[in-house]
Amino acid sequence: MYELIITNKNYSSWSMRAWVLLRAAGIPFTERLLRYRPGGFRPQSPSGRVPCLRDGELLVWDTLAITEYLAERHAGVWPQEAPARAWARSAAAEMHSGFNALRNECSMSVGVRLRRHGISSGLQTDLVRLAELWEEGLARHGGPFLGGAGFTAVDAFFAPVATRVQTYALPLPAPAAAYAQRLLQVPAVAQWIMDGIAETFRDASHEEEVLAQGVLLADLRAGAS
Amino acid sequence: MYELIITNKNYSSWSMRAWVLLRAAGIPFTERLLRYRPGGFRPQSPSGRVPCLRDGELLVWDTLAITEYLAERHAGVWPQEAPARAWARSAAAEMHSGFNALRNECSMSVGVRLRRHGISSGLQTDLVRLAELWEEGLARHGGPFLGGAGFTAVDAFFAPVATRVQTYALPLPAPAAAYAQRLLQVPAVAQWIMDGIAETFRDASHEEEVLAQGVLLADLRAGAS
Repeated sequence: MYELIITNKNYSSWSMRAWVLLRAAGIPFTERLLRYRPGGFRPQSPSGRVPCLRDGELLVWDTLAITEYLAERHAGVWPQEAPARAWARSAAAEMHSGFNALRNECSMSVGVRLRRHGISSGLQTDLVRLAELWEEGLARHGGPFLGGAGFTAVDAFFAPVATRVQTYALPLPAPAAAYAQRLLQVPAVAQWIMDGIAETFRDASHEEEVLAQGVLLADLRAGAS
Repeated sequence: MYELIITNKNYSSWSMRAWVLLRAAGIPFTERLLRYRPGGFRPQSPSGRVPCLRDGELLVWDTLAITEYLAERHAGVWPQEAPARAWARSAAAEMHSGFNALRNECSMSVGVRLRRHGISSGLQTDLVRLAELWEEGLARHGGPFLGGAGFTAVDAFFAPVATRVQTYALPLPAPAAAYAQRLLQVPAVAQWIMDGIAETFRDASHEEEVLAQGVLLADLRAGAS
């Protein structure tokens, strides 16, 4: 049985990717949730980051590496057709190392709704690229998911982005906005968000980071006033 | 025949990873070198970044995705044993999304030698983690490369780091320093560096970024005074 080491579901976009992938693929695992720490997760993770996947003695400590580890052992992790798989890996890797403005200016907070003070030019560039990428995947592979008919790892990589679109009401053209909505309705994604909303833990610096981006419209989380 | 789209060999660490991997694995390819542009490589690359691998109609536009694309088609891209492969993928993915101080404060410039003004605390943290990671891979898989006896993708991912160690005389403990030296002697790595040194193209902003880090000791590049 795999053990997935994650941190708080309200905050941790990388934890979400691996968890949603496992859950959506129907791969059994137990989760171990470490309380969110801005300084990182040593010694539980050698890089200080989560998620990590433990399989017996073996520890896999990055989301993309976890994805490939699972893809060697389980069907349906990546699209089945080689060209769709190559596209999906490129898109997931682009998310892995890019979209910095989106990640820095739209910290994940699944239970919060804000009206943004504005959209920086860096964020605008990221949103244009995101819409282009999503629309290309949907058109090329026929939808409703990025690699075709089934939800695969590339969709899991963009699931946290769908929560950010919701939290910050990020403007997207219609096909991209519809895809983000579709992601939010995938049962594994919806479950993660419900779990995040049920959390009562708050990290002051993360809360501040989120609230600095706009005017709070709603806080759906347990214990919110 | 694959076509690998890269940019200048003196500067581009990501181009180097894919090129060195292909060359070291003995996979035939042609290269297409786009002149270095700090603003990115649209429209040749959908993400604006290089390298990209073209295989007929298919374009793979990220180094990790290229690596997995090749691993499906050629032997020896990743270590053969599953635990070593999982470790190698984790380490390569950590490089893909991390080591930000190392990447920002030690821009690649293969033909330049500097005495640094100093080592920031962020860079020091990255160097400690780098040495730990390398020493773990060597010890766990028996060396002389990170995944064991053969040079694989994880070594290709750290090849640009070896050039930075040389350019900036970065301090590392003996086993890590020896591994960096070993990387520089791999024929594919040595060839890339020779090609970089032969380049006469200079980008003013990249040159400035490098020179801001210390006192120039030597410029081995063609046309340097």
